[in-house]
Amino acid sequence: MTVRIGVIGTGKIGRDHTRRIQQVLSGAEVVALSDYSAEAAKAVQRDLAPNARVYETGEELIAASEVDAVLVCSTGSTHEAYVLAAIAACKPCFCEKPLATTAEGAKRIVDAEVASGKRLVQVGFMRRYDAGYVALKRAVTEHTGAPIMVHAAHRNPSVPEQYVTPMAIHDTLIHEIDVFRWLLDDDYVSARVTFPRTCAKSHAKLRDPQIVTLTTAKGVVINTEIFVNCQYGYDIQCEVVGEAGVARLPEPMAVQMRLGAKLQNAILTDWKDRFVASYDVELQDFIKAAAVGTASGPSSWDGYMAAVTSDACVAAQEVEGAAIPVTSPARPGLYS
Amino acid sequence: MTVRIGVIGTGKIGRDHTRRIQQVLSGAEVVALSDYSAEAAKAVQRDLAPNARVYETGEELIAASEVDAVLVCSTGSTHEAYVLAAIAACKPCFCEKPLATTAEGAKRIVDAEVASGKRLVQVGFMRRYDAGYVALKRAVTEHTGAPIMVHAAHRNPSVPEQYVTPMAIHDTLIHEIDVFRWLLDDDYVSARVTFPRTCAKSHAKLRDPQIVTLTTAKGVVINTEIFVNCQYGYDIQCEVVGEAGVARLPEPMAVQMRLGAKLQNAILTDWKDRFVASYDVELQDFIKAAAVGTASGPSSWDGYMAAVTSDACVAAQEVEGAAIPVTSPARPGLYS
Amino acid sequence: MTVRIGVIGTGKIGRDHTRRIQQVLSGAEVVALSDYSAEAAKAVQRDLAPNARVYETGEELIAASEVDAVLVCSTGSTHEAYVLAAIAACKPCFCEKPLATTAEGAKRIVDAEVASGKRLVQVGFMRRYDAGYVALKRAVTEHTGAPIMVHAAHRNPSVPEQYVTPMAIHDTLIHEIDVFRWLLDDDYVSARVTFPRTCAKSHAKLRDPQIVTLTTAKGVVINTEIFVNCQYGYDIQCEVVGEAGVARLPEPMAVQMRLGAKLQNAILTDWKDRFVASYDVELQDFIKAAAVGTASGPSSWDGYMAAVTSDACVAAQEVEGAAIPVTSPARPGLYS
Amino acid sequence: MTVRIGVIGTGKIGRDHTRRIQQVLSGAEVVALSDYSAEAAKAVQRDLAPNARVYETGEELIAASEVDAVLVCSTGSTHEAYVLAAIAACKPCFCEKPLATTAEGAKRIVDAEVASGKRLVQVGFMRRYDAGYVALKRAVTEHTGAPIMVHAAHRNPSVPEQYVTPMAIHDTLIHEIDVFRWLLDDDYVSARVTFPRTCAKSHAKLRDPQIVTLTTAKGVVINTEIFVNCQYGYDIQCEVVGEAGVARLPEPMAVQMRLGAKLQNAILTDWKDRFVASYDVELQDFIKAAAVGTASGPSSWDGYMAAVTSDACVAAQEVEGAAIPVTSPARPGLYS
Repeated sequence: MTVRIGVIGTGKIGRDHTRRIQQVLSGAEVVALSDYSAEAAKAVQRDLAPNARVYETGEELIAASEVDAVLVCSTGSTHEAYVLAAIAACKPCFCEKPLATTAEGAKRIVDAEVASGKRLVQVGFMRRYDAGYVALKRAVTEHTGAPIMVHAAHRNPSVPEQYVTPMAIHDTLIHEIDVFRWLLDDDYVSARVTFPRTCAKSHAKLRDPQIVTLTTAKGVVINTEIFVNCQYGYDIQCEVVGEAGVARLPEPMAVQMRLGAKLQNAILTDWKDRFVASYDVELQDFIKAAAVGTASGPSSWDGYMAAVTSDACVAAQEVEGAAIPVTSPARPGLYS
Repeated sequence: MTVRIGVIGTGKIGRDHTRRIQQVLSGAEVVALSDYSAEAAKAVQRDLAPNARVYETGEELIAASEVDAVLVCSTGSTHEAYVLAAIAACKPCFCEKPLATTAEGAKRIVDAEVASGKRLVQVGFMRRYDAGYVALKRAVTEHTGAPIMVHAAHRNPSVPEQYVTPMAIHDTLIHEIDVFRWLLDDDYVSARVTFPRTCAKSHAKLRDPQIVTLTTAKGVVINTEIFVNCQYGYDIQCEVVGEAGVARLPEPMAVQMRLGAKLQNAILTDWKDRFVASYDVELQDFIKAAAVGTASGPSSWDGYMAAVTSDACVAAQEVEGAAIPVTSPARPGLYS
Repeated sequence: MTVRIGVIGTGKIGRDHTRRIQQVLSGAEVVALSDYSAEAAKAVQRDLAPNARVYETGEELIAASEVDAVLVCSTGSTHEAYVLAAIAACKPCFCEKPLATTAEGAKRIVDAEVASGKRLVQVGFMRRYDAGYVALKRAVTEHTGAPIMVHAAHRNPSVPEQYVTPMAIHDTLIHEIDVFRWLLDDDYVSARVTFPRTCAKSHAKLRDPQIVTLTTAKGVVINTEIFVNCQYGYDIQCEVVGEAGVARLPEPMAVQMRLGAKLQNAILTDWKDRFVASYDVELQDFIKAAAVGTASGPSSWDGYMAAVTSDACVAAQEVEGAAIPVTSPARPGLYS
Repeated sequence: MTVRIGVIGTGKIGRDHTRRIQQVLSGAEVVALSDYSAEAAKAVQRDLAPNARVYETGEELIAASEVDAVLVCSTGSTHEAYVLAAIAACKPCFCEKPLATTAEGAKRIVDAEVASGKRLVQVGFMRRYDAGYVALKRAVTEHTGAPIMVHAAHRNPSVPEQYVTPMAIHDTLIHEIDVFRWLLDDDYVSARVTFPRTCAKSHAKLRDPQIVTLTTAKGVVINTEIFVNCQYGYDIQCEVVGEAGVARLPEPMAVQMRLGAKLQNAILTDWKDRFVASYDVELQDFIKAAAVGTASGPSSWDGYMAAVTSDACVAAQEVEGAAIPVTSPARPGLYS
């Protein structure tokens, strides 16, 4: 059976997911497109999915009988309504991050999904599908003993002026927030932020770098450096320290060269290249679950927990050094 | 358009390629299966391709109007006849190695394909599609300057008793033979074999390890160690030395751990894991070309050159230290 | 000119330094020995310095006209008095850590040395002489741009029961406290301690691991993990993040091996092996300065600053999460 | 006891060894200097050894009663006569490579030393004292199982025009020739040379690079790439493949940096820096043995074997591809 997919939002990521479904992945086909710019939707139709129908609104696309499952790739503020509509229509729905722009919005989705009685939503936290993190999780489970500390870094060469301090949480740390919950199989209980001196390349409205300390219910302490003007590259580092040993996230594959008095290999500079393979894996996973009418992988509960944690981290930015509690309600059975 | 594929030979590799086409790759579907054991073909039909038809013979499958393209995954001695039949039927054909069991057989395929006027055959040299070799080739092209030497190793933990000395060429070195021609964009002119003392774990009919020295038309010298009782793992090493620098094939992705007084990461032990991702890429490439009625990637000319070179290497095993010429006829324009 | 050295305290480290002077280093000779156990002093005399004279007390040794310079290797509580006596005698004095058991004691030494008008004291902070740290400091100075953060770890396989929580500062972190002041050319302004859950292998009176966060006058934030039951080895890690790049302390030299499905190299397990070469370098440096009647390298001011910082760290252990100020008086011109 | 050393030849290496003895090492003193340029000898006397006496000839220096041991650092063609004179005087003698300019000359030294009845000569093969090779030898002995193959490279950024093809053996490979005999505890039986195309940067009288294949009595095959115009750095590589695993010579200590989209560390470019620490160790070893009237480390037999092997390698350069036998007489008991 081929899963018939409707894509809402045909900007960069919507176009890219359409290409994936049409040219790379197995078992699905894009049959519907929608964008607030009809032109954009038609361009993707023309380039990648000539048999797809273009809908005027996301709501119509979700309602269409020819659509089995939905991809929400539109601008963040529209996610909540589309996801709720997909749940109402009982159609599996892949939603790019953020699930909603507020924790309350994410909670409404959780409630609706719980009421529906089954998993229907996958959130686009692609790192869980990255071969490196998957291997790291296995190493931690099988070799290092129970985790006690995580040392991590999320570095970006530079950011534009509109990138302000809270975005370091909402747009950058958000990936660590989700992937460490999954990696450690744990929940956060507090967040603290430490600011070193701001780097020379930063902007007026951005305190960069910063170190976010998350503690978990099991007592793990996670220090993550966020440094978005690091100049040298896009670099994701993660080291887990356990009872019996230490494991590190693998560096991206690179050819080691000896050139000009340097033993060297390239570091990526564009974040889009870092986890590119994991987008294929997450969407294939969505297709597989959608084929039987459900969803797996990062859930709306995970999206909700990420929102709650982000809010605590942003609050922690505002009172440097203070430990801000991360409070989470009981986890519904659907997500256990 | 969905390419309708017929698979001849439903043993391990035929079953695996069927799974790939049905569950992983885009743009194709297995519609026909054939095996000398009808039971085997039916098992694959049942497990992976319920809509496929099982044919009694490969010839019938090739001739079937519902089949657009053919995968030859049967035992090596049958390859030549099936590939010639596919060419005669003007159907794109992916043939697992070896293209033929003799250089003459491979030459007959080349001649038939040239007579057909277009590329129809892709040989299953998957290493050309490995991300590591692709990155290495780019590093050599862009950074190290023109190649002068290659130092390589092909190591396997152990081999069964039926693995005899010439198989180190036909079954093992064959991959290096092809991938270095591609990596260097060059042709071989001679082969020499050096035997160190045979290792303690070797068998009576196997001189292991051995070092094969290939020289190319451009003057590159390639030393490849073949060691199939190395005990410690399946390990493929390749270093290219150019005019301005040196580049190494990346090691497979692995989590670095600190455990028990060792900084360590796993080395693979099963050859099937080493290039597993490249099988997906090579078959997707075949599907893409087959959709427009042709073939790309490793050609029957490459398969023929590999056969000619293998023969020279086996001859070189028999007169240790002697340089055996590798003679190749002019390359037909179809393959330029 | 040969510097005539008197060694006070002939236990493990005193014996080892005597061996160094007698058998490895250039320009000095051990002419006097003293220990609270006369037997111990005589044993070192017999084994390593037959021409040395054994004195009953350290004070007599310091006063002896044949002694040009003094090594204080006795138990920590005796250091202050011996160093003050050496300063009073105007003799260069190498003092193993700690310079004194209290910050006040260290301050008395500083005051005496300042009053003497010249550098006479070198404290045994050997890491400043380690080739790895020296190379790291050069990398930071020449390549990474001004430092902003340091991520460090000090790990030990296990500790005995008498090792209690404050010893993680006084005996373990003390080396990082000194070497980072030197590496960054900076002073500390606050200390904070975070405790993850205590590891399973820890003892009743030890909270292990812990993370100490030091901030500096220039705004650098240093996170150092102390984990003295890490099981896997003695491991010192240090990464400096600067305005333009990142530099890491080199791992100790080790042979990379491929064995038993692992790419591996040894990690040290005994702290005594980690900086063994730097003891030679620090003592040769002491001899060189003593030959001209003075001292260089880590000063009594550095020892004092280490004591002040240690006290703040121990205070920080007692109020987890609180930033404890590190206050230091103005630096005397002698140490600028 | 302080060993009183006379240094013959006060050029670069003689001056450097004098500095070592005077300022770095323990247990010796330079008391005599000699050079064909009296000015040069006096300059070293003035700068480094004011108490040393300058002799007009090496012969006088060797004969002087105040000289306990001799360092021969003069031009290569004079080594044989000085070493023979030192043996005749029964004084321990450290001789920089080559021991003699011909195998016959080296043999005469061996014969004289054997006749003297004890070891008196140490040849300046410093790599045996390099911490990396020492660790590699231990890894091979303890972990990899009996060696079967060695893959090595000796690369230099560039060479002047007077560096002609045979110098690749006499001046460059000579170090590998000695260190591999020691590493493997084995003797050579044949040498073969393979020439890839000559690199673009080479000179008219130099075929560069080249690959020298040495086989040993125990059946080990050693391939060493010599590439003296490699551009990128001075780089020494060595991998030993044994029955159970593989071990690599450690890279020189270097700070890993992340800068400008590159994960990088420096590669040395000057050969003098590569084994600089091993010069200290070899001379300290000489002093220690000289103090008891003998010599240890690389012997005149090793120097003779290196000469015999070099001659075979140069002969092999002249008949590319041919295996030239390396014949060695029985080893005298003195060197067993």
